[in-house]
Amino acid sequence: MTIHTAVRRTLKVLDPNFEQKVRDSFKHQGVMQAHGGELVHVGLGTVEVHLPFSDALAQQHGFFHGGIVAMVADTASGFATYTVLSPDEECLSAEFKINFLYPANGTKLIGRGGIIKVGKTLVVAEATVSVVRDGEEIDCAFMLHTLARTTHVKSGVTNDVMQKC
Amino acid sequence: MTIHTAVRRTLKVLDPNFEQKVRDSFKHQGVMQAHGGELVHVGLGTVEVHLPFSDALAQQHGFFHGGIVAMVADTASGFATYTVLSPDEECLSAEFKINFLYPANGTKLIGRGGIIKVGKTLVVAEATVSVVRDGEEIDCAFMLHTLARTTHVKSGVTNDVMQKC
Amino acid sequence: MTIHTAVRRTLKVLDPNFEQKVRDSFKHQGVMQAHGGELVHVGLGTVEVHLPFSDALAQQHGFFHGGIVAMVADTASGFATYTVLSPDEECLSAEFKINFLYPANGTKLIGRGGIIKVGKTLVVAEATVSVVRDGEEIDCAFMLHTLARTTHVKSGVTNDVMQKC
Amino acid sequence: MTIHTAVRRTLKVLDPNFEQKVRDSFKHQGVMQAHGGELVHVGLGTVEVHLPFSDALAQQHGFFHGGIVAMVADTASGFATYTVLSPDEECLSAEFKINFLYPANGTKLIGRGGIIKVGKTLVVAEATVSVVRDGEEIDCAFMLHTLARTTHVKSGVTNDVMQKC
Repeated sequence: MTIHTAVRRTLKVLDPNFEQKVRDSFKHQGVMQAHGGELVHVGLGTVEVHLPFSDALAQQHGFFHGGIVAMVADTASGFATYTVLSPDEECLSAEFKINFLYPANGTKLIGRGGIIKVGKTLVVAEATVSVVRDGEEIDCAFMLHTLARTTHVKSGVTNDVMQKC
Repeated sequence: MTIHTAVRRTLKVLDPNFEQKVRDSFKHQGVMQAHGGELVHVGLGTVEVHLPFSDALAQQHGFFHGGIVAMVADTASGFATYTVLSPDEECLSAEFKINFLYPANGTKLIGRGGIIKVGKTLVVAEATVSVVRDGEEIDCAFMLHTLARTTHVKSGVTNDVMQKC
Repeated sequence: MTIHTAVRRTLKVLDPNFEQKVRDSFKHQGVMQAHGGELVHVGLGTVEVHLPFSDALAQQHGFFHGGIVAMVADTASGFATYTVLSPDEECLSAEFKINFLYPANGTKLIGRGGIIKVGKTLVVAEATVSVVRDGEEIDCAFMLHTLARTTHVKSGVTNDVMQKC
Repeated sequence: MTIHTAVRRTLKVLDPNFEQKVRDSFKHQGVMQAHGGELVHVGLGTVEVHLPFSDALAQQHGFFHGGIVAMVADTASGFATYTVLSPDEECLSAEFKINFLYPANGTKLIGRGGIIKVGKTLVVAEATVSVVRDGEEIDCAFMLHTLARTTHVKSGVTNDVMQKC
């Protein structure tokens, strides 16, 4: 394992309660709950997420689907971003790019998110994803992710708010 | 609905059996089978995939997770690419970028994939994703996707082959 | 020429003076002035830019440098974005992705920019670049571009303003 | 300066003459020669390029144009890739994505390229760009770059070869 998602800048704590906030939000991600996702670590600007393999996450060769690899990366970098925001803020993905480095063929995905830049409107984050195979961890993807800071999204008022990004 | 995934170039049929090949492969995608994904259309260089909403695909606000939106896009553009390859070839995602345009808040995702360029080694494809809400279809994402052409990936010999890309 | 940068949505005129605004700004782009760039067309949400070849724009094989291809694309989609903003706004590139389709080997680059989505904070734009060789126009690149809307950037106060994006 | 382009994996020397090869190629980049670009450092998998400001590289506010920032990044990561190839190989940009972090407002751009993965067909590279202002170096962009390995491109036979990617 040589790629690491370094927290690349000195980050400010805008919400001392950031860990609890992230853990609460993670519990409400249906996709992570349904498939056994785990929030293994939450630090300021850094989050680690695990997702075990199952057929319900597989592509045609029995590997994790590329979209699922992207989902783990997006979750890791998205929650890493959430840790650096104010209590009244959350973030929406504007876009991301992901490079696939090795086949996601193994028993578990590990996503590690970090922060490249916190701007006034946007946050640039990154994530690496590795796959565990025969007890070894192999890097399989790298994501570069742009998120928009926004005030809290409430169900029912999502359209207006989300058209912000 | 104004974004459309035009087949942007004249495409050659390298495998007259392309539709069956795509349909067979789709059946083996565990993630699509587990979540009710449907392959609605397969044409030369164009594929349409539907995926109904369920909690097992949701993020914290009850919308489709961004990674799931990416998965539908990747599946559409990936299979669109598969339609333009020779019988002895398949394709692997090298990378993709996706822009999120509107919240994926609805009952169904529709992914439409198309081809921008077929090169000797790489194919550049695109996909749009829309979400169905209150009977209306709303564009929610656009993907630009680079895939590597490769000879068939067989389970068990994946490492060597996939290190190609 | 089969790739075209369709204006993909109905766009609103927020500044009836958009063409003049773009033409004025283009004149102040030192890089376009120094290398003979031309603003060939300005419409609502669509801009066409030409740039003739010179050694001062070349990579090691005597083609246009990939960064120059990106510059033409970025200029086209950036100015296309500028046409859809209010009189008191301008836009800053948050990020872009560009796929190179063919070698930029020819006498002139043509960049055509269009708009995918105008959001409250961000605009998603696109550009295609073609190269003219032996009188024929050949598509050589496709860009997907995210820009942040901002109030006018004044020289000297750029840091604060530009940290917005 | 906190972002750095770490060489992220153990890299193999395939061409002991890599430094000379890169220096020779750099001399043939018309765009770098015309604008005073300098190849400051060449190591295995890592290259540093400098480019001084001039009006001929500026956008409308007198900063380096975003396309020029991309050109410096592309040059750094492209030549970093060139250092890890065999004597009979070179590389072509398949695509890149760049995030702009701060305005490129200063007297010099510094691009530093590194390698994320060397595959059999593709190389994934990265670059950071900083701008020098008032004697200080400020990170202004981050690029993620996919390149195709190819046998040497000769002028006149470019079409066939370059359609590879």
